[in-house]
Amino acid sequence: MKEEAAGVPEESGAPRRRGRRPGGSDTRVALLEAARTVFAERGYDGATVRMIADRAGVDPAMVNHWFGGKEKLFVAALDLPADPGAILSEALPGDPDHLAERVIARLLQVWDETGGTQLATLLQSIASHEVAAGLLREFIGRVLVHKVLSAVAPDRPELRATLAGSQMFGLAFVRYVLKVEPLASADHATIIAAVAPNLQRYLTGRLP
Amino acid sequence: MKEEAAGVPEESGAPRRRGRRPGGSDTRVALLEAARTVFAERGYDGATVRMIADRAGVDPAMVNHWFGGKEKLFVAALDLPADPGAILSEALPGDPDHLAERVIARLLQVWDETGGTQLATLLQSIASHEVAAGLLREFIGRVLVHKVLSAVAPDRPELRATLAGSQMFGLAFVRYVLKVEPLASADHATIIAAVAPNLQRYLTGRLP
Repeated sequence: MKEEAAGVPEESGAPRRRGRRPGGSDTRVALLEAARTVFAERGYDGATVRMIADRAGVDPAMVNHWFGGKEKLFVAALDLPADPGAILSEALPGDPDHLAERVIARLLQVWDETGGTQLATLLQSIASHEVAAGLLREFIGRVLVHKVLSAVAPDRPELRATLAGSQMFGLAFVRYVLKVEPLASADHATIIAAVAPNLQRYLTGRLP
Repeated sequence: MKEEAAGVPEESGAPRRRGRRPGGSDTRVALLEAARTVFAERGYDGATVRMIADRAGVDPAMVNHWFGGKEKLFVAALDLPADPGAILSEALPGDPDHLAERVIARLLQVWDETGGTQLATLLQSIASHEVAAGLLREFIGRVLVHKVLSAVAPDRPELRATLAGSQMFGLAFVRYVLKVEPLASADHATIIAAVAPNLQRYLTGRLP
């Protein structure tokens, strides 16, 4: 849990790792830049770790070293405040009827830690750059839907993913960016009780 | 319905009205600028039509002439793609159990007309300017909650307004800005059937 949040502020240079950086933190920055380019050109599925490493002029092993794999590199390149795929994977085990509660609880925890600034930045980059929007769209389709939601949703996983995304994205926006009360300072239990039934319907309920 | 949408692209200078502009279209621009300043300083309730007109150096009657009143001037100053207060007021008459369907149908109609660009612009300005976020927050609180939602919501209108806002804002974002399929090109009937039960619960259902 904590390692997710700790892995997020990548722009600060991840000082913990500096002692053993094999390619220097320049390697990390070069990989992030290369990743944004290659993901934008090839899409998430089309981009490989080797392509990105080649573009950055470093060994492919550096991707695992600095980011722990392609998906985490992608999340870092997009500057997402949390890895939605990882959060959904963590929340999957357990009673499917309470999946929404687990997802919301985990997201609130991550969002409270990262706060509104990073969400506002993400929003701005999505709203102003078609590339960022395209990458996130690709990610939602390939990673969230095919790896995660199709395992739990009985039918129409794509529609469910976008509906669930609309609810959770809107919640993040109103609570952390727009900061409208009482949602802005509501405790987690209140939000979970208010939102979970709606999210659960999108995830596993009957849809038209 | 059409007049709402036609009233929205105020930045284009509303050519229809130019023939009888008493203060020139400079008056309109001056009023918009003054409105942004005065609303930011005083809040929605604290700002008066007279204060804004004085700041702009024009007669207060110009506010009605160019915008049709304080609320519409506020909506124009915020560059909202639609007046949420007017839409909710229009949707209120009728069976309360189908209120959500009417709200979503009307919003989809307006949003389809204005498209993603204006929503993306609004999003950017909210994410990057605390003043815009503050104005919208004020508007949600004073106008949506107190004038409209408290008439229909049995209890906790503020919480309901923010929850409903989170759903509708997220829907606009995913459909028009992020453009994730299948939500991006789903027809209105599909979206209404999928989202209305959730929105209805926020508006009039049982909350924790």
